[in-house]
Amino acid sequence: MIAMLTDFGARDGYVAVMKAVISTICPGIPVIDISHDISPQNIAEAKFVLWSACRYFPSDTIFVCVVDPGVGTERKIIALKTKHHIFLAPDNGLLDLVLHEYDIENGVEVTNKKYFLKHISHTFHGRDIFSPVAAHLASGIQFNSLGTPVKLKKPKEIFVTVSGKDGYYGNIIYIDRFGNLVTNFKVENLRAAELKIKNVAMPLNTTYGDVNEGEFVAYTGSSGLIEIAIRNGNARQVLNADYGTGAELIIK
Amino acid sequence: MIAMLTDFGARDGYVAVMKAVISTICPGIPVIDISHDISPQNIAEAKFVLWSACRYFPSDTIFVCVVDPGVGTERKIIALKTKHHIFLAPDNGLLDLVLHEYDIENGVEVTNKKYFLKHISHTFHGRDIFSPVAAHLASGIQFNSLGTPVKLKKPKEIFVTVSGKDGYYGNIIYIDRFGNLVTNFKVENLRAAELKIKNVAMPLNTTYGDVNEGEFVAYTGSSGLIEIAIRNGNARQVLNADYGTGAELIIK
Amino acid sequence: MIAMLTDFGARDGYVAVMKAVISTICPGIPVIDISHDISPQNIAEAKFVLWSACRYFPSDTIFVCVVDPGVGTERKIIALKTKHHIFLAPDNGLLDLVLHEYDIENGVEVTNKKYFLKHISHTFHGRDIFSPVAAHLASGIQFNSLGTPVKLKKPKEIFVTVSGKDGYYGNIIYIDRFGNLVTNFKVENLRAAELKIKNVAMPLNTTYGDVNEGEFVAYTGSSGLIEIAIRNGNARQVLNADYGTGAELIIK
Repeated sequence: MIAMLTDFGARDGYVAVMKAVISTICPGIPVIDISHDISPQNIAEAKFVLWSACRYFPSDTIFVCVVDPGVGTERKIIALKTKHHIFLAPDNGLLDLVLHEYDIENGVEVTNKKYFLKHISHTFHGRDIFSPVAAHLASGIQFNSLGTPVKLKKPKEIFVTVSGKDGYYGNIIYIDRFGNLVTNFKVENLRAAELKIKNVAMPLNTTYGDVNEGEFVAYTGSSGLIEIAIRNGNARQVLNADYGTGAELIIK
Repeated sequence: MIAMLTDFGARDGYVAVMKAVISTICPGIPVIDISHDISPQNIAEAKFVLWSACRYFPSDTIFVCVVDPGVGTERKIIALKTKHHIFLAPDNGLLDLVLHEYDIENGVEVTNKKYFLKHISHTFHGRDIFSPVAAHLASGIQFNSLGTPVKLKKPKEIFVTVSGKDGYYGNIIYIDRFGNLVTNFKVENLRAAELKIKNVAMPLNTTYGDVNEGEFVAYTGSSGLIEIAIRNGNARQVLNADYGTGAELIIK
Repeated sequence: MIAMLTDFGARDGYVAVMKAVISTICPGIPVIDISHDISPQNIAEAKFVLWSACRYFPSDTIFVCVVDPGVGTERKIIALKTKHHIFLAPDNGLLDLVLHEYDIENGVEVTNKKYFLKHISHTFHGRDIFSPVAAHLASGIQFNSLGTPVKLKKPKEIFVTVSGKDGYYGNIIYIDRFGNLVTNFKVENLRAAELKIKNVAMPLNTTYGDVNEGEFVAYTGSSGLIEIAIRNGNARQVLNADYGTGAELIIK
């Protein structure tokens, strides 16, 4: 199976062209769209969506990730192999959370033009490189034949693991389309706690339904991280928060 | 086949995660997206889209419907079996039009955790309950094994069936993305009639092309209900209409 | 394989109904969405997206194209057969670029009601005519059985082929969702040139990365046509350009 993640949007047909290239090389391969509505060139957004989704995919899924502001420049394209999955992406940080979470069995810089389309444009490597490479992988070529081995460093700690009574400092690492804010606080079990962000304090609850409409609520989201929402409102706008905005968690 | 209807949008990867869960449990099952752009938590919108689409799906389609403002609270999840289809949805009215239109052969409250993911989050039952249950159904488990039998009442008459010369009162039950207004007037054959809404009167026509740009047109829409549009305009905005806005139909 | 191109959007379930009709008639046929977010009734936009995408699809793909302001009026529905593909569309210019680019082996006006749904609405021929016809074609019926032969004229030259030192006049034929402007200048190899549009002059470069943020860049886009962008900006808005806006290319 191939899973696709891009910022190409739905209107212009770019994603369809990628799927057409894939189907021509590897007919019948199932394709699931993770998202094509990543905010243009927003690598932080893409890397979180990839990380939160990939663990649910079947073994042998090939992830094709094209959020690529450097297309046409000297940036590399890399392929990573974890125990269960293969990831293709530009070498721009998009795979940082995957690198952080999983052991990497193999990594290559994708350079073997044998698996590219014949004509390589300067602006659409999704079509000309990523899609044919993914389709050839799905067809059974050797991972190592894609190019030259590359060693990638695990990024430093991204999550703040919360345990015991204490105060913790973290920040916003994802904002969903409703304006809900996802922090990097990772909690194993819910417990009494207070979250502070932009001078607003709120207790840790269980779900949206615990508060009234228009009120702030903090809760452990579906990715296991603490999230901040306004019930039927937009926390991003009300708090004027953004990626990187700091937050404090006080366990009681 | 599985058909999905949610308000999760295209950006955050939630729908992809549901499909990944489905593919893991029931590889190869085809999935059709009915819509993921239902206005957030708009059950009225979701129930119309489901009703107007479901009749065209092949026998044995399983409909997974997650517009679920009550997620994480005590609301029930129900499964319905009609002659041709199975429907999974929260017990919040989303299935009212289906209940109204079709005879229900079987209904259960979905409680059997054997068919859920192991960890159930408070905010993403689409991933943790709806998807695995649908995939297990597609894999062939018994409908009744999902939980405990439940008896659901047919909602009172929703449509106004139009026949003979008379005046009829109805209201708006759906508004599409172009601002076209769908009424609950059901007509079998077109005949001379006048529609009144918000003090605007218009004759019943056949299609958009019957009027000039910017003019109102009422016609029998593709669902067999009378609709109101402005040719190349937005009837919702111009009339300041909403779900429930009254309309009058005078047959001549 | 069937490929779909419409302006139906993602919200109202229209596309899903088309796929349901297709699946009922021809179970298991793969469907790829080219786009359903064509600006409502924008035939110019649709014809470019179709042209730029179709060459990458496998042989025997059937393209179902429904951008159809004339639905319900006397406009014809046509089917075209090229060497590799079949195209279904209203006779409204949507296929002009396909007609221009490919030799047509066969063309028919689609009139055989045997392959339509039984009830034909006035507003949703995508469901009632296009989808069942495409599904029957995919199931193996004879192309000629769709209706009566029709002869379609090749449109006059659309592209400006650039060769040698000279000045060329062209115009904007597509605008993507980022506001990038696609001209009808077709260049085989990049060479020193200057592009002028709305009194703004810019050299021909290779890719976005060649200029600083906020600067104009002209380059050969992924379709082989010269495009104008503002790096991380919106050229359409800044230039107040539209479909048909003139441009001049001076080869040096």
